[in-house]
Amino acid sequence: MGTAQVTEALKRPSQKSAEAIMGIVHPIINDVRQNGDKALLSYTHKFEKATSLTSPAIDVSFENIRKFHEAQKEEPLKVETMPGVICSRFSRPIERVGLYVPGGTAVLPSTALMLGVPAMVAGCQKIVLASPPRSDGSITPEIVYVAHKVGAESIVLAGGAQAVAALAYGTESVTKVDKIYGPGNQFVTAGKMYVSNDTNAGVGIDMPAGPSEVLVIADSEANPAFVASDLLSQAEHGVDSQVVLIAIDLDEQQLQAIEDELHKQAMALPRVDIVRGAISHSVTIQVKDIDEAMVISNDYAPEHLILQLKDAEKVVDKVMNAGSVFIGQWTPESVGDYSAGVNHSLPTYGYAKQYSGVNLGSFLKHITSSNLTADGLRNVGSAVMQLAKVEELEAHRRAVEIRLSSMDGK
Amino acid sequence: MGTAQVTEALKRPSQKSAEAIMGIVHPIINDVRQNGDKALLSYTHKFEKATSLTSPAIDVSFENIRKFHEAQKEEPLKVETMPGVICSRFSRPIERVGLYVPGGTAVLPSTALMLGVPAMVAGCQKIVLASPPRSDGSITPEIVYVAHKVGAESIVLAGGAQAVAALAYGTESVTKVDKIYGPGNQFVTAGKMYVSNDTNAGVGIDMPAGPSEVLVIADSEANPAFVASDLLSQAEHGVDSQVVLIAIDLDEQQLQAIEDELHKQAMALPRVDIVRGAISHSVTIQVKDIDEAMVISNDYAPEHLILQLKDAEKVVDKVMNAGSVFIGQWTPESVGDYSAGVNHSLPTYGYAKQYSGVNLGSFLKHITSSNLTADGLRNVGSAVMQLAKVEELEAHRRAVEIRLSSMDGK
Repeated sequence: MGTAQVTEALKRPSQKSAEAIMGIVHPIINDVRQNGDKALLSYTHKFEKATSLTSPAIDVSFENIRKFHEAQKEEPLKVETMPGVICSRFSRPIERVGLYVPGGTAVLPSTALMLGVPAMVAGCQKIVLASPPRSDGSITPEIVYVAHKVGAESIVLAGGAQAVAALAYGTESVTKVDKIYGPGNQFVTAGKMYVSNDTNAGVGIDMPAGPSEVLVIADSEANPAFVASDLLSQAEHGVDSQVVLIAIDLDEQQLQAIEDELHKQAMALPRVDIVRGAISHSVTIQVKDIDEAMVISNDYAPEHLILQLKDAEKVVDKVMNAGSVFIGQWTPESVGDYSAGVNHSLPTYGYAKQYSGVNLGSFLKHITSSNLTADGLRNVGSAVMQLAKVEELEAHRRAVEIRLSSMDGK
Repeated sequence: MGTAQVTEALKRPSQKSAEAIMGIVHPIINDVRQNGDKALLSYTHKFEKATSLTSPAIDVSFENIRKFHEAQKEEPLKVETMPGVICSRFSRPIERVGLYVPGGTAVLPSTALMLGVPAMVAGCQKIVLASPPRSDGSITPEIVYVAHKVGAESIVLAGGAQAVAALAYGTESVTKVDKIYGPGNQFVTAGKMYVSNDTNAGVGIDMPAGPSEVLVIADSEANPAFVASDLLSQAEHGVDSQVVLIAIDLDEQQLQAIEDELHKQAMALPRVDIVRGAISHSVTIQVKDIDEAMVISNDYAPEHLILQLKDAEKVVDKVMNAGSVFIGQWTPESVGDYSAGVNHSLPTYGYAKQYSGVNLGSFLKHITSSNLTADGLRNVGSAVMQLAKVEELEAHRRAVEIRLSSMDGK
């Protein structure tokens, strides 16, 4: 394939018109904003009688995610940039956070873990979950269990744009939050976008969301069955999932072996229809060497990058754009999706070029400070006054001058 | 004042309707996107014959900002969350960044410094500045000098939404960037918001922008002349600037002393009309003690927080929401605006509750990786498989199972 063909093959499926969806979402948000709980038709779930479930699988995952995010804590930074000029940086938790966990037919306790654990580690004071209830009005016990473990204040039993609006503006029973996290369908995404642009809401969001995707780079040492199983893991997420294989210098027989495994394993899956849909617009690109593969991968900026390669660890140095990397034959994507410790809330749709996945920092903000001694102000004062003069901000200049005069007893 | 009165007094001036501005900005962006340079009416400025200016004030500021942002670099993180399960986190520079420097009547080399230096320290490959030219078509030499020093690729001589569109989509002569930074008027802000919501642009922005603001907390030890000079520094930014003073247990005489200084110093300023406008809707709030002051300040979440207090350094522990803090009598805001080393691109309009100011991390993204040994997969595998089962993602479960079977020689 030529460069233009590769670019064409890797074009992500076009997103539905943002304006059409906004037209639906806008009145929903206004309704919740004005009419609160009545519009939300929700109630908050209290934990007292929530669940007696215990899940060792959740406990193991919780602990690994906690450890990895705990290690991301930073000490305050202090730098004396000039004698007597001390600049510092420290972090503070975002006070109130809203975590959206998709529900309905799907059951996603892993999303509750991936958002709730870092919020807990960061020290956020109020953690509010929102998740659409099941048809009987209840919520998956695994999600309630996670909410318990992370110390959430409540679970808002609602989904869609109305849940996002409740978190952004607050209602009688839902706490207004400072930032909203989590994946969701196009209405959730449009709702998050809308409230993050409304200065009256005063709310941030984690990142833009698009369909999930994987790019697997395999060489002749890769086990065809493992490669196929990773491609299928991604494919089962939905028909709009993107599945890309870059094959490094594989011959016909090796490519066929992967293809054969793909069909054999797909036939055994319960979601075979979804898998077939995703596989049908998956892409295989053949390249000569790892450098060629990495140019394509870095340009595509995959959410998940799987390296089934000889010396895979060394190749990480060449990774410039990706959400999360899975190294070597014993690291399927699913370990990162659930339990290894890394976060699974990752940038999609090429946004790995400028966004990080959810991490401890997503629940903190950095604040800086300056503290000058009298000598410090003497040292830096003339630079400040000269620049203030260039910018014609005379009061800025005088705020320094008046202090220097005071030191000199004038 | 009661709580409700304080809240009312500290209400930020309402922003113009986002929809009205979007109506103007939308066609401009589409025009540039479709017609490139022709619509942009711009050209890029090459550096060869740019300037022979040297500015010691810029050199000093550059070096302090460089030092403070250099110190923000992180080592890669590696955590073994379970035996054989190794999770890592490392950072990569955002490849192409666009820095918007307001111009026209204002001359803002400091903005070029505050955005350009961290981009350079982060190792961004392409740094593109955009700034509206002066009436003779040229650009302020100080900005050209900064562009030189940070290794910028070019300066796009254009402003407003059209400059933002050129950076977001690229034109024949302007490099498309991955993220756009910098302050600007309402059209620049609306343009940044628009392109950050367009998945076809694939571009991020630094943060939402609103009018600049300062909150000064002063006690009886504060020098009235210094307090007044800091309030005036903020006021001269524009009539929509927010200027708030919290006075801790000051008597009538002390308050009057600040008031008198304010008027005396204001009369001497060239921008006296702007200053008067801002001062006219400034607010003074009297409180009993520092705790009461900090509740108000943290709720307001000021862009700039100035502590003119006894033991000001200790009070920093109580700061939960603020862009940047200025500690003690020898630290006027203007040192941070220009030369101390801290960044002056800070969250306004209460967004300090969830956003950090521009820092080194604004020019990087974090990527995680997992690397499991065979034993690692054995250790974590059952948790992964159990959660995949709960979520009914069978291919995820099998991606682990097929590997465990292979280890056991099945």
